[in-house]
Amino acid sequence: MLKIKILYIAFFLSTSLTALCQKDHIVLEDQGSFAVGGKVITAPGTFDPIAHGAFNPGNQSASGQTLHGDHAYVFYQIPVNAKKLPLIFWHGYGQFSKTWETTPDGREGFQNIFLRKKYSIYLIDQPRRGRAGRSTVSGSISAAPDDQLWFGIFRLGIGTEFYPGVQFDKKPETLDQFFRQITPDTGPIDLNANTDAVSALFDEVGDGILVTHSHSGGQGWLTALKTDHIKGIISYEPGSNFVFPEGNVPEPIHYVGGTLEAKGVPIDEFKKLTQIPIVMYYGDYIPTEPVENPGQEQWRAALQMAKRWTETVNKNGGDVTLVHLPEIGIKGNTHFPFSDLNNKQIADLMSEWLKQKGLDK
Amino acid sequence: MLKIKILYIAFFLSTSLTALCQKDHIVLEDQGSFAVGGKVITAPGTFDPIAHGAFNPGNQSASGQTLHGDHAYVFYQIPVNAKKLPLIFWHGYGQFSKTWETTPDGREGFQNIFLRKKYSIYLIDQPRRGRAGRSTVSGSISAAPDDQLWFGIFRLGIGTEFYPGVQFDKKPETLDQFFRQITPDTGPIDLNANTDAVSALFDEVGDGILVTHSHSGGQGWLTALKTDHIKGIISYEPGSNFVFPEGNVPEPIHYVGGTLEAKGVPIDEFKKLTQIPIVMYYGDYIPTEPVENPGQEQWRAALQMAKRWTETVNKNGGDVTLVHLPEIGIKGNTHFPFSDLNNKQIADLMSEWLKQKGLDK
Repeated sequence: MLKIKILYIAFFLSTSLTALCQKDHIVLEDQGSFAVGGKVITAPGTFDPIAHGAFNPGNQSASGQTLHGDHAYVFYQIPVNAKKLPLIFWHGYGQFSKTWETTPDGREGFQNIFLRKKYSIYLIDQPRRGRAGRSTVSGSISAAPDDQLWFGIFRLGIGTEFYPGVQFDKKPETLDQFFRQITPDTGPIDLNANTDAVSALFDEVGDGILVTHSHSGGQGWLTALKTDHIKGIISYEPGSNFVFPEGNVPEPIHYVGGTLEAKGVPIDEFKKLTQIPIVMYYGDYIPTEPVENPGQEQWRAALQMAKRWTETVNKNGGDVTLVHLPEIGIKGNTHFPFSDLNNKQIADLMSEWLKQKGLDK
Repeated sequence: MLKIKILYIAFFLSTSLTALCQKDHIVLEDQGSFAVGGKVITAPGTFDPIAHGAFNPGNQSASGQTLHGDHAYVFYQIPVNAKKLPLIFWHGYGQFSKTWETTPDGREGFQNIFLRKKYSIYLIDQPRRGRAGRSTVSGSISAAPDDQLWFGIFRLGIGTEFYPGVQFDKKPETLDQFFRQITPDTGPIDLNANTDAVSALFDEVGDGILVTHSHSGGQGWLTALKTDHIKGIISYEPGSNFVFPEGNVPEPIHYVGGTLEAKGVPIDEFKKLTQIPIVMYYGDYIPTEPVENPGQEQWRAALQMAKRWTETVNKNGGDVTLVHLPEIGIKGNTHFPFSDLNNKQIADLMSEWLKQKGLDK
């Protein structure tokens, strides 16, 4: 009787404590941040710390001084009992690591969702964006209002009207938070600096899985040509820089507001993209035929190019899966499926794909 | 006998599991991020999503569009069994939240150190800096090299020579990481926008403790005039904007490279700073008499003003403690004591002060 009581106590203590640290909580082995990649430039001359060592904004002598810039900034979190391959998250155009954090309506984003699924996570700010603001090239930043342009291009709706059934919370404070996720470039966008820095990150971290969004989608293909440590790519709505074999580059796709051109690389380079599993997801409100709304048109072009690209990579022995969410019955997603109201369902789709490809060990 | 065995098992299970989640690991109740404060500006005219909805960098119509900017960005982490008052960390000039994260030589910074001490932490990027990059005023960013200027002003040494005994790791990669913590302003610095945003943060979070560094030191005093939720201030090397009662403002302090002026406010305003405990810490290599090196001179002026300020606040019934670290036998600290090689000792000093003031409940 006493024996049973005590066994019960032992059981209770162990289970409750396991629950305490495993169930509702995020338990971290480690977390931290660092800069990776980048350049150093040096001004001609000699630095005199006595003559030029006073803080004098706008009127400072650069003589003989260095500037460290064009690096990426990375914040990482390693959960206890982490899976072997980390998820390395890269934001899109005009955005930064916030993309993967708390959603605009205050729910958990992919950072917390995948930490709970025991993936290590690395959140990138690409060179000249967010926390990687130090640029080796001067730049200027315009404060010309453009929220409604992005409202349209990010497919929340048109003008100021939400699309019917859109998976986005309608509270005004939610849209306010969404608009405040936009951040400018602190220098000209440099695809080479960006892909060098992210490739350097993989070389430092080792094998991992790249998760991209929009503008980082195409940059992700280019990065995979620079490092062998990318073991899989999940790409949400890649918009440009689709890479094809030279001589087999499709015609540019014209749409209302622009033209989408494909990029040619030598076949041996291209072959690298056939060596890793890749999945692309596109959301809702993307027409198949030309429409007058530029906010939708550029995604019609992107999805059409993504189909051509999928066929080409797979014809060359690759493993690309293209998922147009409405076609599998998942409706109302914007350009940000990972932070839309149904983002847990979107995360489960991604988990399922990782499992299928054996990337969840 | 059996009873003892089983009790032992119970004890072993409970202690080992407690160790698992409490000892080496950071166990989080919650973590997330949000924008707070800020403005919305609107361009005159009407936005036409069809005519102006195409992405056209540098040549976009702003007509009728809004821009959300001048907010602060905050990342927070709440440990299990957190203390009542969170620590709200604010970076200095040319810096961002990285100040409190991993040190340049890869050790844990105040973010992890105080999470382990069970404090909730909030890391701020002030308006127009880092992740709060969206500004309502246009700006330009110079890439003129200035690393060695900061090497001097941040008191690592002079020119490229480290000070003897400085608490900074000499590996080249450490200095590389340190320089990459510098980030530019994406718009003009606006003390009012900054203090409004941080005051809005306290109004949202509720009572908390403000931890400032350098340029945010003076901004911290100004913020404490705007909200009643700041229950204590820890300030590392505040450099400017010391607030005195009108009519009792000390003479400006002239130093090699500049002049440090104090700020006057109505006595009722000033009195607010006498209602909360405040501690200031200054590091090493700060002379008491004028020297020729501007990198040291501005801190001679700051420390002198801090002494005047301490006397004035305390004379008016306040509770300000001024700690010049070398005077209590702690040598070699730079302008960044919280990330120097002895940062655990610096953190323990801060913990001790929090305990003395009853802010560690």
